[in-house]
Amino acid sequence: MKSSLKRYIIGKPLRSDALGEQKLSKTKALAILSSDALSSVAYGPEQILIVLMTVSTVAFWYSLPIAAGVVVLLTALIFSYRQVIYAYPHGGGAYVVSRENLGVNAGLVAGGSLLVDYILTVAVSVSAGTDAITSAFPSLHPYNVVIAVFFVICLTILNLRGVTESASILAYPVYLFVIVMLMLIGVGIYNVVTGQVPAELHPKVGTPVAGISLFILLKAFASGSSALTGVEAISNAIPNFRDPAPKNASKTLLAMGGILAVLFIGIVSLAYFYGVAPNAKETVVSQIAEASVGRNIFYYIVQGTTAMILVLAANTGYSAFPLLAVNLSKDGFIPRIFQIRGDRLGYSNGIMMLGLGAIVLIFLFGGTTEHLIPLYAVGVFIPFTLAQVGMMRKWWREKPKGWLAKFMVNTVGAIISFIVAMMFFVTKLPQVWPVFIFLPIIIWTFHRIKQHYKTVGEQLRLDNVELPNVEGNIFIVPVAGITKVVENTLHYAQTLNVDKIIAFYVAFDQAEAKAFEEKWKAWQPDIRLVTYYSPYRSITQPLMKFIDKVEHQCTKSGYQLTVIIPQFLPKKGWHHMLHNQSSLLIRASLLFHKNIVIMTVPFHLLK
Amino acid sequence: MKSSLKRYIIGKPLRSDALGEQKLSKTKALAILSSDALSSVAYGPEQILIVLMTVSTVAFWYSLPIAAGVVVLLTALIFSYRQVIYAYPHGGGAYVVSRENLGVNAGLVAGGSLLVDYILTVAVSVSAGTDAITSAFPSLHPYNVVIAVFFVICLTILNLRGVTESASILAYPVYLFVIVMLMLIGVGIYNVVTGQVPAELHPKVGTPVAGISLFILLKAFASGSSALTGVEAISNAIPNFRDPAPKNASKTLLAMGGILAVLFIGIVSLAYFYGVAPNAKETVVSQIAEASVGRNIFYYIVQGTTAMILVLAANTGYSAFPLLAVNLSKDGFIPRIFQIRGDRLGYSNGIMMLGLGAIVLIFLFGGTTEHLIPLYAVGVFIPFTLAQVGMMRKWWREKPKGWLAKFMVNTVGAIISFIVAMMFFVTKLPQVWPVFIFLPIIIWTFHRIKQHYKTVGEQLRLDNVELPNVEGNIFIVPVAGITKVVENTLHYAQTLNVDKIIAFYVAFDQAEAKAFEEKWKAWQPDIRLVTYYSPYRSITQPLMKFIDKVEHQCTKSGYQLTVIIPQFLPKKGWHHMLHNQSSLLIRASLLFHKNIVIMTVPFHLLK
Repeated sequence: MKSSLKRYIIGKPLRSDALGEQKLSKTKALAILSSDALSSVAYGPEQILIVLMTVSTVAFWYSLPIAAGVVVLLTALIFSYRQVIYAYPHGGGAYVVSRENLGVNAGLVAGGSLLVDYILTVAVSVSAGTDAITSAFPSLHPYNVVIAVFFVICLTILNLRGVTESASILAYPVYLFVIVMLMLIGVGIYNVVTGQVPAELHPKVGTPVAGISLFILLKAFASGSSALTGVEAISNAIPNFRDPAPKNASKTLLAMGGILAVLFIGIVSLAYFYGVAPNAKETVVSQIAEASVGRNIFYYIVQGTTAMILVLAANTGYSAFPLLAVNLSKDGFIPRIFQIRGDRLGYSNGIMMLGLGAIVLIFLFGGTTEHLIPLYAVGVFIPFTLAQVGMMRKWWREKPKGWLAKFMVNTVGAIISFIVAMMFFVTKLPQVWPVFIFLPIIIWTFHRIKQHYKTVGEQLRLDNVELPNVEGNIFIVPVAGITKVVENTLHYAQTLNVDKIIAFYVAFDQAEAKAFEEKWKAWQPDIRLVTYYSPYRSITQPLMKFIDKVEHQCTKSGYQLTVIIPQFLPKKGWHHMLHNQSSLLIRASLLFHKNIVIMTVPFHLLK
Repeated sequence: MKSSLKRYIIGKPLRSDALGEQKLSKTKALAILSSDALSSVAYGPEQILIVLMTVSTVAFWYSLPIAAGVVVLLTALIFSYRQVIYAYPHGGGAYVVSRENLGVNAGLVAGGSLLVDYILTVAVSVSAGTDAITSAFPSLHPYNVVIAVFFVICLTILNLRGVTESASILAYPVYLFVIVMLMLIGVGIYNVVTGQVPAELHPKVGTPVAGISLFILLKAFASGSSALTGVEAISNAIPNFRDPAPKNASKTLLAMGGILAVLFIGIVSLAYFYGVAPNAKETVVSQIAEASVGRNIFYYIVQGTTAMILVLAANTGYSAFPLLAVNLSKDGFIPRIFQIRGDRLGYSNGIMMLGLGAIVLIFLFGGTTEHLIPLYAVGVFIPFTLAQVGMMRKWWREKPKGWLAKFMVNTVGAIISFIVAMMFFVTKLPQVWPVFIFLPIIIWTFHRIKQHYKTVGEQLRLDNVELPNVEGNIFIVPVAGITKVVENTLHYAQTLNVDKIIAFYVAFDQAEAKAFEEKWKAWQPDIRLVTYYSPYRSITQPLMKFIDKVEHQCTKSGYQLTVIIPQFLPKKGWHHMLHNQSSLLIRASLLFHKNIVIMTVPFHLLK
């Protein structure tokens, strides 16, 4: 555990009081927490066009009002979550808000969805980023899974090293992506305004479209709003911000919302003006870049930064998952290990768990995790809705100054989120049905764990029940021969206040048993030896039988039974392979099955 | 370990005194121990023709004298090994014979070669059998590795169930193969004798061949004698025979030699008369069967039994490897676990080790292990030679009645084996060079293990050095809180006659340390509490530091230090995941690094 390899990879441990230094500035936080949301610009617009194309390319003009709708939804969410940040400055986002205002089960639905969702985020984003890279270099295609797993491992290590260090490395690509996208949109719009883009490339806004239906439009809208996943990340991660944390978080959230809105509208508009149609071989962003600037160096920069931001989007999961896990763990719904800070003060168990989960998903789906996107989007809009409803309830109950305006903001957020979630269920049921199976299982598990902690707590609590009086102590020493190890153990046992020491020996045939008994009598005439014959060549079984017998007698007479195991320890690790490890087996089976004290007296070999 | 699954797969345990019942009758032994040797009929003749074809198909007539040479070699080996059986009725074959007559290192060369060789046997035979099956059903070809591993697992389980049970299942295919081969040879010879085979198919014996050289002929002979691998199996496995074991083993050996000679000569002759030339797509046996009887049902029976015997040839390794391992282990050259009889009285660790080794080889070579054959053949002829030389030495030294005849038999065996081994080194060096690397490493390891057992034995032996007097006992109790578990532990510690009990607590911040100290004073005023503050959030490190300190003082004043660990045990297995396992970590690092007694006081939760 303390090997120099670990030190090299993770860095040297940090003192607990260094915690303040690990906090995030606004610019770093924007980079680290918004890559998930911003990266969706790379696929959100495309999702809208894919749905519209099922009717006709003439319907593409609808992408403009739909994008406007998505931006309205985004605005509503941003303002709703801004209120969450100020109301819950200790973070926790949807889980805490729902639990406190709507009850435990609503909280667990939100928390459970998000917990799974972050794992999906990592798997989906990394796979998508890998795809972008292997599309550029087709010879790498057979290594998709290996590359994706490699990225996940890198992200895991970066996050184990600590939150600000990873931010420093991750900030540049995010800002680079934003700048490159803004330049692309700038050039594109300039071309459109200066009339360099032929008008016949795009259908006029308002052109009637045969076969268009409200269902199709809603489906397109739902698809487009998958670009809003990741918006909640900041509200979960407030404790990571520098003081004043809520104010800094709120500013970061607004900045993210602004950037996301501009990029989203920009890409959708350019796609419309250039008449870009989605196709399986080339992404919409790639087509826009090619149409605006041609296949030059800038085109490759656009593709490169897009690939990078997709991989980094996974990092949002790494920031939010461990913090959510801490909240769930503090409430006793998931194991306590998620509350332990690692050497570098990050919640390392959460980070490793997330990395492991993502790697498993990548292996299971062979690196093609795209069809998990709707599942992942619905898993985001369920907690969105619950959080907004929770906020409504809060304002309604507490009625602080100016509560009505706040109530209205969250009501709008709640209604829109709910509608989007429903649209996913209605229009994409074949992909989102697993939610109905996994969510109940997860929530049931949460309750089981909570129940366990509760009963354990009750059993461990001191009470006024007096512990029974101990009349005396009996020691059993299992011996494998007459050696220094046994001598050493008996010598130790004799220094303690013991009423009886019984040596116990297992013989594999009757003659051997007799011979051993005689040798023992000559060596240790004062210590009683019991020998059992084991016809099935097991050592543990006869020992257990004997212990049962003695334990039975002890219980009757108020004696305490202790098994004291002589154990010799070779000097080098590989030597362990050369010796039967019966004492370890004996110890394990005693510890787990019997209520008796087990003592190990080590005898370290010197060479 | 004692799960019902294990019972179902392996069968119920057998009593040690049931050992006699597991012994082999001659007919079963012939099946179980000769499948390796007999299966080589399926590839031995082909190996000869492949070498001759490098000159010209006219050279094929040389296959007849070469086959005769192989049969001479076989006869020499059979009679040599017959003498080994009588001289060493407890088995051990080449290893025991070489060690006793030529010294430890000669024995280890023989034993090491054979040990590795049996693993190669299993991997090579099973892969070849799988190839035969997937050649018949090409759609199975992508699953070659999976099928081969499946066969190895089946063989391992059969052998873990016990030696006679596996023989019962394995006897039928071996006898079926022998009968089918005899029928094939019978039909073929009948056709030849009745003149149904055109004479122009085969070159006349004695036809001069341009370009033939002694080197080619020797290479062909060496290749053909790879059919003799497996001949030593019976001499290794004498203890598996029913009494009188040596006599039964000797008869079985003669029977095997006779059958092998007939089949080998028969197949070579038919190949010659039908003018069969080896080709990559169809085996020689398959071509002979097709030429003699056509592609009818009998043809498929020939192919099927051939495939089966190849898989079963692996079983010879399962009989011989564990027994050789026992011999090496008894002499202290390999770990002692190989001497333990499993539930079904087989040496189960040897069986599992062999299966595992073969599976690793199959995975490493992707199921195409054919080019391991020369390596495997040379690994057989080295111990052959050593065993025969050892026998020569024995007769020379002991000079029993009629020793000269016996000496001559073994001398002939030794010379021929040596020549064959040398021919492999000369003609197939590119495939057999790993012997020169692995054999020295293996022998060095054998000596290291032996040396370790020796030094351990010396250190464990009782001597007259008095153990130091213990002035008193000090207990350290690491506590994680004020709970029933701790109360229970302290209660126990107080029943032993201890001079001092010190509770030890690790706090993660200063305020917490103070608060805990006060609570403790109120609860256990008589037991001293020591609190350390851990800035790096480690529990083990501060505990170790404290133990070091106390241990230092104890050593000075002759006190014995014991660490007594309170441990609560949840009722169900999955509950363990929900609790930090610090006490297990603490115990492990104490046991391996410190010379102090460790006690675990369990507190079993009831729900």
